[in-house]
Amino acid sequence: MNFASDNTAGIAPAILDAIVKANESFALGYGNDALTARVSRRFADIFEREVAVFLVPTGTASNSLALAHLSPPWGAVLCHEESHIATDECGAPEFFGGGLKLIGLPGQACKITPDTLKQSLDRGHWGGPHHVTASALSLTQSTEAGTVYRPAEIAALAALAHDKGLAVHMDGARLANAMVRLQVSPAEATWKAGVDVLSFGATKGGALAAEAVVFFDPARAAAMAERRKRGGHLMSKHRFLAAQFDAYLADDCWLDLAAHANRMADRLAARLAMAGVDPVWPVEANEVFVVLPREIDVRLKAAGASYYPWQSRALPKGFSVKDSAVLVRLVTSFATSGADVDRFAEIVRGR
Amino acid sequence: MNFASDNTAGIAPAILDAIVKANESFALGYGNDALTARVSRRFADIFEREVAVFLVPTGTASNSLALAHLSPPWGAVLCHEESHIATDECGAPEFFGGGLKLIGLPGQACKITPDTLKQSLDRGHWGGPHHVTASALSLTQSTEAGTVYRPAEIAALAALAHDKGLAVHMDGARLANAMVRLQVSPAEATWKAGVDVLSFGATKGGALAAEAVVFFDPARAAAMAERRKRGGHLMSKHRFLAAQFDAYLADDCWLDLAAHANRMADRLAARLAMAGVDPVWPVEANEVFVVLPREIDVRLKAAGASYYPWQSRALPKGFSVKDSAVLVRLVTSFATSGADVDRFAEIVRGR
Amino acid sequence: MNFASDNTAGIAPAILDAIVKANESFALGYGNDALTARVSRRFADIFEREVAVFLVPTGTASNSLALAHLSPPWGAVLCHEESHIATDECGAPEFFGGGLKLIGLPGQACKITPDTLKQSLDRGHWGGPHHVTASALSLTQSTEAGTVYRPAEIAALAALAHDKGLAVHMDGARLANAMVRLQVSPAEATWKAGVDVLSFGATKGGALAAEAVVFFDPARAAAMAERRKRGGHLMSKHRFLAAQFDAYLADDCWLDLAAHANRMADRLAARLAMAGVDPVWPVEANEVFVVLPREIDVRLKAAGASYYPWQSRALPKGFSVKDSAVLVRLVTSFATSGADVDRFAEIVRGR
Amino acid sequence: MNFASDNTAGIAPAILDAIVKANESFALGYGNDALTARVSRRFADIFEREVAVFLVPTGTASNSLALAHLSPPWGAVLCHEESHIATDECGAPEFFGGGLKLIGLPGQACKITPDTLKQSLDRGHWGGPHHVTASALSLTQSTEAGTVYRPAEIAALAALAHDKGLAVHMDGARLANAMVRLQVSPAEATWKAGVDVLSFGATKGGALAAEAVVFFDPARAAAMAERRKRGGHLMSKHRFLAAQFDAYLADDCWLDLAAHANRMADRLAARLAMAGVDPVWPVEANEVFVVLPREIDVRLKAAGASYYPWQSRALPKGFSVKDSAVLVRLVTSFATSGADVDRFAEIVRGR
Repeated sequence: MNFASDNTAGIAPAILDAIVKANESFALGYGNDALTARVSRRFADIFEREVAVFLVPTGTASNSLALAHLSPPWGAVLCHEESHIATDECGAPEFFGGGLKLIGLPGQACKITPDTLKQSLDRGHWGGPHHVTASALSLTQSTEAGTVYRPAEIAALAALAHDKGLAVHMDGARLANAMVRLQVSPAEATWKAGVDVLSFGATKGGALAAEAVVFFDPARAAAMAERRKRGGHLMSKHRFLAAQFDAYLADDCWLDLAAHANRMADRLAARLAMAGVDPVWPVEANEVFVVLPREIDVRLKAAGASYYPWQSRALPKGFSVKDSAVLVRLVTSFATSGADVDRFAEIVRGR
Repeated sequence: MNFASDNTAGIAPAILDAIVKANESFALGYGNDALTARVSRRFADIFEREVAVFLVPTGTASNSLALAHLSPPWGAVLCHEESHIATDECGAPEFFGGGLKLIGLPGQACKITPDTLKQSLDRGHWGGPHHVTASALSLTQSTEAGTVYRPAEIAALAALAHDKGLAVHMDGARLANAMVRLQVSPAEATWKAGVDVLSFGATKGGALAAEAVVFFDPARAAAMAERRKRGGHLMSKHRFLAAQFDAYLADDCWLDLAAHANRMADRLAARLAMAGVDPVWPVEANEVFVVLPREIDVRLKAAGASYYPWQSRALPKGFSVKDSAVLVRLVTSFATSGADVDRFAEIVRGR
Repeated sequence: MNFASDNTAGIAPAILDAIVKANESFALGYGNDALTARVSRRFADIFEREVAVFLVPTGTASNSLALAHLSPPWGAVLCHEESHIATDECGAPEFFGGGLKLIGLPGQACKITPDTLKQSLDRGHWGGPHHVTASALSLTQSTEAGTVYRPAEIAALAALAHDKGLAVHMDGARLANAMVRLQVSPAEATWKAGVDVLSFGATKGGALAAEAVVFFDPARAAAMAERRKRGGHLMSKHRFLAAQFDAYLADDCWLDLAAHANRMADRLAARLAMAGVDPVWPVEANEVFVVLPREIDVRLKAAGASYYPWQSRALPKGFSVKDSAVLVRLVTSFATSGADVDRFAEIVRGR
Repeated sequence: MNFASDNTAGIAPAILDAIVKANESFALGYGNDALTARVSRRFADIFEREVAVFLVPTGTASNSLALAHLSPPWGAVLCHEESHIATDECGAPEFFGGGLKLIGLPGQACKITPDTLKQSLDRGHWGGPHHVTASALSLTQSTEAGTVYRPAEIAALAALAHDKGLAVHMDGARLANAMVRLQVSPAEATWKAGVDVLSFGATKGGALAAEAVVFFDPARAAAMAERRKRGGHLMSKHRFLAAQFDAYLADDCWLDLAAHANRMADRLAARLAMAGVDPVWPVEANEVFVVLPREIDVRLKAAGASYYPWQSRALPKGFSVKDSAVLVRLVTSFATSGADVDRFAEIVRGR
């Protein structure tokens, strides 16, 4: 019953097979191989346009390199105050960005609303030599609360951002989970809605370690190769990074893996609701947040369930967690079994 | 006939098996798993002392994080002028080190001599607020010329460095190849000779992507975990990084793989010598540098041989390459076959 | 009627005289002169202990160099959300600090309360490789709201900070104005209350351009000379920087200049109160914040008064500014005349 | 007899007068004052074109901010190996430039020759993701050896640089001294010869502390205001920085001050030659380098002469300094008296 994170799962079989298969004979390093070329074409196909793609081993690298490329050191990146870049990357965006500033915006369910963004952009203390310049908006899809921005929401936010000269970045560490829910094309969910640069995640989805920075305007990617190398993120045996994406992107594998994870989350939420435990936020991706009485928490832990307690300022208005209870995060993945979900719910129900 | 680089080889079977085997059930991310703990113990065993180990996916990351930890931003790292950190990492040490300076020292066969180091340390323009402070010495083992520092040579250099307050770093991307040649213990080749921090490479040796920063004084590693995370080099599914090292370090696998590579280099050098082509530098690891007449170069390329032309200021005194010839680098690996070596030599011999 | 800022004033006569007087014969550069040595002794005398002092030309340099010295790049500096370092230095602390993070805390009258600090320190997301480490607390004295921390308040905040391993920095760009109000010794207002490093300002107080970073524990200042040089803040004709401080610190000049500025602020506040316009925050230093009806604002501007509109989230609870009015900041300095104060107030009164 | 440096001189009378005169009434801070506007126009007049000018307090700031603006973090700045930026700024260009690399080129008399530059640019290891990109050429005028580049020499170097996409920076800390020698217009000595950005020094020439970054293409200066602020180099009482330049640039004051310094250097060289001590390099600005027998060195020091010993790899071919002698640097300034020059020479002659 591992619901600690989607990164506690291993490698999806198709992806592991691709690594094994890529291990034949020799291949030039640093991305000068056939698999890497094929992956670039796959991204272009999926997004229905020319793109510039840079593969890297971690999500922190993907986000930080992208933001550093979009914002000058005296720039500010606006993001949700509980986003991964703001709270869980030990200041990596600031490091890669030469000391740029992250501005955390509040928002229920970890989503930024156009009103909040507008207010921040209008507050009047941007630019000039004294103040940092608002340079980029970063949206997380799906969010840290397991919720999903609709294309129209992204478009509204991106329009506000572009209007003020900001670039739009999307942290898509869990993009696949959002895509499954949205049922629109990848293009519609990203660049057609105004996203300029996407951190496309595969690791949480089932890869060993594979993330991609996707520039929808290839011209914007100038010198990104140097930035990646300089960050230590250009892998020498690059074909194995490419192999992971090659398998992940083939035949809708990425969507199938995410669909399973989402189904498990839905099932978990449904079973818990039947047990009287409703999710705190709408379950739209592969995360379920619930408040558990402490005795149930103890019971679950005793039964070997693994998950993390959570804190958030993005809870629904008026929502509060009593001392006798604990807010927890439950994450499903491609590897989550229905049996584990059901067993978890049963323990909650007290059986 | 791929002699382009040891990173054109794939994954050694034992290491790939370990990745596959690690892909069972769930494991906590970010190094909080059993395999990672086991790898730390393996390093302690191999080096016969407590060490602090940080696994990362690339050699550039390993070197840069280590140097940034050993030198303040106003520090200087002394290294061979043709070392990888100085010429092939796009300024990564400067980036991670907050703008530290690399000072390239000359030296035949890409080795720094105690005399050269002493002269540089004594020149009088170190420290004070106006000049950068000499903070670290970085040695490459084996070197970019495929040569190897003897423990006594390392000890002499390290003594000079320590005497002036510098830390000693070793870039061991090809440490295994040196170890095979030296026939001393890993401890004797490193900390007993004065090395403070080691970048221990596995990728060139046969891993998918696995490097380790090894601090021989664990106290010196304080906050390295934050530095790694902040650089985007803490892998979430860390067990797969650990699995590679677990196999690589088990049962002398790392030495066996390197021994094969070295044997292939020796064989190549011997066969070429028989063909009248002598190595430029002593062949002590898995690299052979030779000067080929241009018509032989053309013939080899036509036959499908892969290797790179080379330039160096570290050639033996008086040595020069005529316009009708080309200096080339030939790298062998765990995956190099004797047949390829022999065929290459035969083509050189004109058969 | 210039109330725009205390930096719109020129140079106080005693300080200008000192510059002129220092311009005799030759002196070694970079602080190796007699005046610089004397200024160091003056600081030690004033603070009743050994200190390490570094003179720099700007307040942004003073704050940023100090914070970079107190916090690692993966550190966080806690400060009031409207403090100068957070809002008016274009990210200089982040730049000098290698990408450190500023965490803005709310607080009425631009003062941080112990409760707010405690809550932030206890929130649980500090340190570990994923989160930045709370490394320093920065207090502004006097604050951006023209209010003043009492020694007991500083002590309470510093105790909380020290208890969690944070260093305590004070941005004393307007320290003199606070000192005049507090009527305690400089030692009591700083290190005896727990301040570790002080940015001691003289520019706003009457210097041409002179600020000092004062380390109360000289050991903590190791390598600060290099950091200053590297930031371009070591002045070659350093004696002229020293001369300014020499005059500023002699014979309570700094306190006398600030006393005048404070008296002018008090008088302005009193005159405005008589005109029915009360200060928003207690007037404790040399700044008066009031809400002016827009027609009075227009009248003042027409009469040549110079001042800035202001925005703040640190207003007293329930306080709001109507659309028909404007919150403005009025700053007095050593150069403010009573006549200008009176005239300003008269215009407000409508005469 | 102070020949230690031109920064041991004080403030030239006209400049000090201007500071005193600027100290009247109030003025807006941060460069929003009338004097600053006038200085900008003066620069435009002097250089016969629109320029963007940024005043800063130190030469290190001027050089570092300029280079950081011309080169990306993965760029390399080519400069003479003994230039101030390479050896005397404690890594400031690397710090401001986000870890850029300085590449030191050799050259007699501290001048880079077109041949040396060409060889470096052609060596083939620039750019790509693995190598840093040659981004800027920095020339020092006059040089660290007191020699001067002729416009044709600058033009030849700049043409090579521009041809490869490098920007051309000039460190003009002693530009005035060169101008006096060259007898061409400032435009001919800079942008007409290919200089893109100039660090125009006034401090060594007679200012208290005043340097300017001059962009000959104002478009290139975009965001330089933010970079300066963020570096702590935007002075609040900016009018006093402007006042210094206003006086320095008025009525050829800068050239007159430099002409005196140069005349003193010429006189010193002539007197020493008469005493049998010839300058090591041509005396073209305000520096004289000579080799003194150690007993004369002792005698001079005993008589109170102040100057520094020197080391250089840029000595004329075959030139060497015996153990019984010492190479010294003698710097003259606007404040050097003919009497001091003569007395110094007499002591050398043994009278």
